[in-house]
Amino acid sequence: MKQFMNGRDALVTDAVDGLVRTSGGRLARLDGYPHIKVVVRTDWDRSKVALVSGGGSGHEPSHAGFVGQGMLTAAVCGEVFASPSVDAVLAGILAVTGKAGCLLIVKNYTGDRLNFGLAAERARAFGLRVNMVIVDDDVALPHLPQARGVAGTLFVHKIAGAAAEAGQDLDAVTAAAQRVIAGVASIGMSLDTCTVPGSPKEDRIADGKAELGLGIHGEAGVQQVSFTGARSAMAMVLEKLAPHVTGDSNVALLNNLGGATPLEMSVLAAELAASPLGGRIQAIVGPAALMTSLDMQGFSVSVLPATADDLTALAAPVAPAAWPGMQAIVPLAIRPLPDGLAPLKALASAHPLRRGLIESCCAALIAAEADLNLLDAKSGDGDTGSTLATAARALLAAIDGLPLADITQAYRAIGSELSQTMGGSSGVLLAIFFAAAGDASASGKDWIAALQVGLARVMQVGGAKPGDRTMIDALEPALAGLGHGLPVAAAAARQGADATAGMVRAKAGRASYLSEDKLAGHNDPGAEGVARLFAFLAEKHG
Amino acid sequence: MKQFMNGRDALVTDAVDGLVRTSGGRLARLDGYPHIKVVVRTDWDRSKVALVSGGGSGHEPSHAGFVGQGMLTAAVCGEVFASPSVDAVLAGILAVTGKAGCLLIVKNYTGDRLNFGLAAERARAFGLRVNMVIVDDDVALPHLPQARGVAGTLFVHKIAGAAAEAGQDLDAVTAAAQRVIAGVASIGMSLDTCTVPGSPKEDRIADGKAELGLGIHGEAGVQQVSFTGARSAMAMVLEKLAPHVTGDSNVALLNNLGGATPLEMSVLAAELAASPLGGRIQAIVGPAALMTSLDMQGFSVSVLPATADDLTALAAPVAPAAWPGMQAIVPLAIRPLPDGLAPLKALASAHPLRRGLIESCCAALIAAEADLNLLDAKSGDGDTGSTLATAARALLAAIDGLPLADITQAYRAIGSELSQTMGGSSGVLLAIFFAAAGDASASGKDWIAALQVGLARVMQVGGAKPGDRTMIDALEPALAGLGHGLPVAAAAARQGADATAGMVRAKAGRASYLSEDKLAGHNDPGAEGVARLFAFLAEKHG
Repeated sequence: MKQFMNGRDALVTDAVDGLVRTSGGRLARLDGYPHIKVVVRTDWDRSKVALVSGGGSGHEPSHAGFVGQGMLTAAVCGEVFASPSVDAVLAGILAVTGKAGCLLIVKNYTGDRLNFGLAAERARAFGLRVNMVIVDDDVALPHLPQARGVAGTLFVHKIAGAAAEAGQDLDAVTAAAQRVIAGVASIGMSLDTCTVPGSPKEDRIADGKAELGLGIHGEAGVQQVSFTGARSAMAMVLEKLAPHVTGDSNVALLNNLGGATPLEMSVLAAELAASPLGGRIQAIVGPAALMTSLDMQGFSVSVLPATADDLTALAAPVAPAAWPGMQAIVPLAIRPLPDGLAPLKALASAHPLRRGLIESCCAALIAAEADLNLLDAKSGDGDTGSTLATAARALLAAIDGLPLADITQAYRAIGSELSQTMGGSSGVLLAIFFAAAGDASASGKDWIAALQVGLARVMQVGGAKPGDRTMIDALEPALAGLGHGLPVAAAAARQGADATAGMVRAKAGRASYLSEDKLAGHNDPGAEGVARLFAFLAEKHG
Repeated sequence: MKQFMNGRDALVTDAVDGLVRTSGGRLARLDGYPHIKVVVRTDWDRSKVALVSGGGSGHEPSHAGFVGQGMLTAAVCGEVFASPSVDAVLAGILAVTGKAGCLLIVKNYTGDRLNFGLAAERARAFGLRVNMVIVDDDVALPHLPQARGVAGTLFVHKIAGAAAEAGQDLDAVTAAAQRVIAGVASIGMSLDTCTVPGSPKEDRIADGKAELGLGIHGEAGVQQVSFTGARSAMAMVLEKLAPHVTGDSNVALLNNLGGATPLEMSVLAAELAASPLGGRIQAIVGPAALMTSLDMQGFSVSVLPATADDLTALAAPVAPAAWPGMQAIVPLAIRPLPDGLAPLKALASAHPLRRGLIESCCAALIAAEADLNLLDAKSGDGDTGSTLATAARALLAAIDGLPLADITQAYRAIGSELSQTMGGSSGVLLAIFFAAAGDASASGKDWIAALQVGLARVMQVGGAKPGDRTMIDALEPALAGLGHGLPVAAAAARQGADATAGMVRAKAGRASYLSEDKLAGHNDPGAEGVARLFAFLAEKHG
């Protein structure tokens, strides 16, 4: 079993129960399991024309998912790909039909026609007014007079549903359905077959091939075609549809046959909209899974010539959440990029003390390169020293252009410089550190408090805190001590860095994926780098 | 390539364009392809708090599908499973943020945290108010302090979205998001891995196994478990969730990870509702694809302890069609079967003439059994004669119980009898024929006209018409001639039956699948049977 079910026999009954229980009370089912699986509206008083549809299961949300105000009144569910029994259809009709009568919407398959047809006769024997329409929208087999009923059925549900909801009589609702059926045309394409629950999957479609004009019950397509991408796939489908499309006011329905991803469906929507036929299509329903074939990785396009009344009917809100609504197809709306993506470069200015401190920091990190690499090799890929040294060299090379006289601008410029030259997470974190320090500085914090704001932001964004075996274990005590002078800060950094050797459960960063024995006894290389930096500063400037 | 796309590089950009073009003008995207892929609301005046989310693609409809009134203001899309760049996030923030500020909703992945975090810093440098929250709802890895962000993110989008839409300020919107994040817990299960576009599929999960606690980027689950069905699968998921669920007022979100069919998702919904934990869950969002992992055949459950305010926020209508709404979980509503499924059996009554005609019809069909079988063997499975003879024998056996004195009841009773004893399509069609004749008779038609109504109904339901090489080719002219006496009817039936030998393109019924050379020169066996029947009647009663 490779499906989420409790055995094949319980699949449809369990699924109907799930639908009913998660309907918020909008839906009920008839007693009569396992043979009679009928979903009905609970908010139904028989005062209007009832719409009953159904057929084999495996096409969800069709049809039970479309039961609700504005669409179907009842759905009669067969087993997977099998027509429901005459008794089941009759039960559905009798459960919802009042004096206004009932319209059966049936897809053109022999079993469905016969079983719905006989059920209609039996219902008429009770004096009920029952009409039946047969949806035959598939254009894949142009020479077969009995075209199949596929996703175009949704247009019938929606437009006849709106007519019934508006209180039109049975003849008017039937005529609306007939008009939609006469106009709608559909065709599908798939890259793979569907998996029938409990059966092995047929491996019919080779790599690089697609089936065009396939049915919704796993029937083979009319032809296998070469598949080279979404654009040509949509073009092939639309080429088959185009002869059936009339006029310039059309609505398309883009149906996911079940297993195509939303990404793929959106790509297909873009291709449909951009196609020559797309210019004759005003609005679209979907892309959405509307008439699926279990998990089939395919799609179908249905096109309906639509009057203004049809557009109103299709746009009318309905209760079933499975109906995705209709949207106008619009030209691609592209907004210009906002200003500010390229940060303004502040003018260079001099500040000898700050320059000296920065140069010392860089010198410290360059000097520590080999040692930090060795340390990192014990728990990582041995490049912490080189990463920091490379950034230091780049900062030294850029130092003449920094706005050193303005501490806010200086912090921001250092952050910007580091984000451009330093790869990976550490570059981003240092950029955040200095950018936040710059902001804090701009809002009046002194230079040390500003750096502490930067550290707090790094902790929020990076998710690490003291004790997690990261550079924070040295940086946090160093900044806390900095107000008492560089020697105090350096001592605190050293103590913090050395403490990381005992932190054998790294909780953030790459080392969190390593086992304890790889970490014990070695300082975290980032923390060690911070300690070396403050030691150098204390010696030179303290 | 086994995906509907135009190459992997164009997948996300094409998909974003498809989303925008089918949004009815509600959405736009920023210029800046291919690196900057940002979807924004067009109906946005920056007067309220902006909500910006995003991350790697492959989780659709998250996040671009949730851009719209009441949810996100902008979504920043990375490539499949890859974080968007800092510039892209910054572009999104700058494009939508006004004086009310902006909340970034970020799933807890290092790349997303860093890139959104740095973008936030850069936006703050422009004086914008930007807050950021990190969603970490996954409970699969209880010992990892950095829990992943998965489908529970949708609760954040919706509740923070409702707060922003209501005009709350940035701190209040942020606090709402933080509260949701603190409360929500999620875990997933899958039967298969996902297919990363352009890459071969990893075949990691054997038949009979499932992965519990897997991520949304194809990461392996925390454990592989035996999969024995939907019930135990849901039980395992809920067992992991239960320790994180508090109180008795909770909302569940049942998420399709992409490749589970709607049938499977409804079965899982039923199991969730029926579970012990289900009793502590008031309402459900879904089942629906909300935070997918491409085509992964799996699901996740998220549970949020919900206040009355939360329920109101979750129930608020929103623009994005991808949001399925929230529904109360209700007890299973089961309606009794309607009366009338077992047809009333009319009382037997005598009518010697009708009885004689029926007995003759039956005798004719029994006599023709072997000949009709031979004829059918040329174009079918050789059982037409036996099918008709078996039905005739059953009708003869039942004739004493028929209400022959009432023509309406007699027709209906014959139809009912045939539908019970005759298998297959022909039994249903004959049942329809006599049931419709009975109704027509009840409404005042004479017995011949009533049979013609029956034939018309058979043609509507069965889809065949004269010329399609079916029994109709004999029956239709026979009924047309019947008013002029049985000999005329018999001659017409014979002429009609013989004409079928020249109909080499059967257009309905089983023979429509056969090639011309199998059909040419042979009468259709059904039409031949009708001709034999009328010949017998004419000889005996004419």
